[in-house]
Amino acid sequence: MPTARARAERPRTRRATGRRVSPRRVASPVITLTSDFGLHDPYVGIMKSRILQRAPQIALIDLTHEIAPFQPEQAGYWLWCAYPQFPAGSVHVAVVDPGVGGARVIIVLEAAGHHFIAPDNGLLGLIARSCSDARAYRLDPKALSALGLSFASATFHGRDVMGPLGAELAAGRVRPERLGERTELLLGQLRPAVRTRSGALEGQVAVLDHFGNVLTTIGAEDLRPFRAPQVLLGGHSFRLVHTYTDARPDECVALINSSARLELAVREGSAAARLQPPIGAAVQVLERNA
Amino acid sequence: MPTARARAERPRTRRATGRRVSPRRVASPVITLTSDFGLHDPYVGIMKSRILQRAPQIALIDLTHEIAPFQPEQAGYWLWCAYPQFPAGSVHVAVVDPGVGGARVIIVLEAAGHHFIAPDNGLLGLIARSCSDARAYRLDPKALSALGLSFASATFHGRDVMGPLGAELAAGRVRPERLGERTELLLGQLRPAVRTRSGALEGQVAVLDHFGNVLTTIGAEDLRPFRAPQVLLGGHSFRLVHTYTDARPDECVALINSSARLELAVREGSAAARLQPPIGAAVQVLERNA
Amino acid sequence: MPTARARAERPRTRRATGRRVSPRRVASPVITLTSDFGLHDPYVGIMKSRILQRAPQIALIDLTHEIAPFQPEQAGYWLWCAYPQFPAGSVHVAVVDPGVGGARVIIVLEAAGHHFIAPDNGLLGLIARSCSDARAYRLDPKALSALGLSFASATFHGRDVMGPLGAELAAGRVRPERLGERTELLLGQLRPAVRTRSGALEGQVAVLDHFGNVLTTIGAEDLRPFRAPQVLLGGHSFRLVHTYTDARPDECVALINSSARLELAVREGSAAARLQPPIGAAVQVLERNA
Repeated sequence: MPTARARAERPRTRRATGRRVSPRRVASPVITLTSDFGLHDPYVGIMKSRILQRAPQIALIDLTHEIAPFQPEQAGYWLWCAYPQFPAGSVHVAVVDPGVGGARVIIVLEAAGHHFIAPDNGLLGLIARSCSDARAYRLDPKALSALGLSFASATFHGRDVMGPLGAELAAGRVRPERLGERTELLLGQLRPAVRTRSGALEGQVAVLDHFGNVLTTIGAEDLRPFRAPQVLLGGHSFRLVHTYTDARPDECVALINSSARLELAVREGSAAARLQPPIGAAVQVLERNA
Repeated sequence: MPTARARAERPRTRRATGRRVSPRRVASPVITLTSDFGLHDPYVGIMKSRILQRAPQIALIDLTHEIAPFQPEQAGYWLWCAYPQFPAGSVHVAVVDPGVGGARVIIVLEAAGHHFIAPDNGLLGLIARSCSDARAYRLDPKALSALGLSFASATFHGRDVMGPLGAELAAGRVRPERLGERTELLLGQLRPAVRTRSGALEGQVAVLDHFGNVLTTIGAEDLRPFRAPQVLLGGHSFRLVHTYTDARPDECVALINSSARLELAVREGSAAARLQPPIGAAVQVLERNA
Repeated sequence: MPTARARAERPRTRRATGRRVSPRRVASPVITLTSDFGLHDPYVGIMKSRILQRAPQIALIDLTHEIAPFQPEQAGYWLWCAYPQFPAGSVHVAVVDPGVGGARVIIVLEAAGHHFIAPDNGLLGLIARSCSDARAYRLDPKALSALGLSFASATFHGRDVMGPLGAELAAGRVRPERLGERTELLLGQLRPAVRTRSGALEGQVAVLDHFGNVLTTIGAEDLRPFRAPQVLLGGHSFRLVHTYTDARPDECVALINSSARLELAVREGSAAARLQPPIGAAVQVLERNA
């Protein structure tokens, strides 16, 4: 990212006193990439080429390219969990885009000091729902054109628009509000957990990860009001533990994971295989003594 | 790539007028990597280490490491589609090398302003066939030796020769014509589409991608003479549409993809699973009204 | 890596003579990453973000993230094979950590001019056993705290400790002996090959790679005393050849691979599928004429 990197690489300067001072260390923003392209084909590398041609110094970090094809909300859930681990000013490009070439628009979302670029298909719904300062802009082809960008191909807007636009945003050469009109975006099916009238907390199963953990939309802070939380899914009840090794062998437990989300896990086993929950299934938290 | 990077990082200079001027922005060449190494073993990382030791600033971009083992032409097809997306001067290292340690030679191909390094096993045939300025050189162990390179291991010439040589080429420290004699390379089975005497266009199925698209050797420009093209494969006929969303649900259509190649696709489904075409199968284009 | 990179980027300096001299080219250390995270979830990218925030210029190289979950010694074997391919001063972060959050400690191992960071679960046993200068330190939470690091999450110490600590080591901002007390580490089940009383060489099957090769703990130098080595595994005997193409079609052979380890291989086929050896199975080398 030219701006921040330039800052980092600028030689130490002398103040009036003549003492060398070091520029303050600021974490450089990065561009993260999330897609359903898989790694068998060169599509990810091609998108990276276009980004690096506009921002040669930027750090590109792959989140995952193994989103199930055509499941944009799975990508959105991972982004929702992961973006706080990146420096402010980072740009997150997420291309799960079954509607490419059709009428769907592309959104730039500004939220919590980060920028997100994705098709308007629900992918960014969770982030928009959970950030009070979220502002979405609908990409205007004219604004793109001023950046030398266009929907050149009918099938790969990640390469032709979303990736290079991420480079422009990360380089600070354009602001989201210059890219199009404010808009409401499609919110999708996944939503942050809510308290029901009865006092129960209700969230959803969102993703099954590589280790077989069942990840939910319930956040650590949602659980704070509970003294002795009991977690329910599909007629089963799970105790809340601190970490994987607190589980008994073969026990399925609930815990707050490294993304500060509630997950169900089996120690050295697969909760996903055990419970086989459908994505979107309700997960409840009750007070055990209630 | 030291040369270009040095250019990019040079501080802004003042002209006689005293105004700051920005150095002209030039896309830096990169090294792309394509292999059948997979990502389960550390072979890709080891090859990257050797490249970065010779070109610490170069951008390395993975195209894919999931080429089916021992299918060099699959790698060559992807390179043929992808290389135009990279800046001139880029170096493309492709290691699908079942003959490693045997009598096969290694080729450096210069074509269309790019450099390609691969075993002489047909991998570079499509690119050589389609670029009129293609010039192939057969690596001479003596020339390698002058660069401090040798076929040290009998089983990993990607690490010992092709990767580090890519670094030398990208850094501009050696020219292909210094690396060995001009040669003809093995052309392989895949070839660009041709017009038959009857006026039909005939190409081949080349690759089945991650989304289930069936990719062919027919290029966008090959289709230009047709007013109402009809695409034929395995006794079935397909209409040509603009993009995926133009297809009816479950319909298999033909379209020009983002690499400017003809592909067969099912909207949110798999044409590969539907058609199960053998690699190399003939794909024809006829004038519908003919 | 700030230190080394600064060296590399420092403008050419003039000696007293006024002639420009180029700084000596030194291969910059890198950070390698090995884990069982897989590439379906964003965990690898999240760990990289934390590393780059502390060492923005470092080269990060993925060895593999596809270690079978909870098989730390598989990761250790790959590291043992791969680390000599990286420049001295490199840092190798290996996170296969089923005991995360429990009582297991984290080790920093200094050996052969490299640094290794991993949980104390046997992962680093092979390297420690085979390097006479290996020195292990057990991470002290207080020393971490001085670096602004803590076991913040109960489930992801790769992100919170091992990755960022790798950045500090690679940047030369901390020395292993400042991180905790010297310790003995868990050695695990895999060990370098040994000569038995009868003069046979005995090693173990360690890993089955992506190509179906069966990799062992027997090193090239272990074989040197043998004039006509015969390799035995599971009641079968294999001849030692130079490279894959020396094998007859369908023959399973032994050879010294690119990591200088003995492996069993079938030319353009899978020795792993053919032999199905358990990990840890004994592999013997005898003198054929004995």
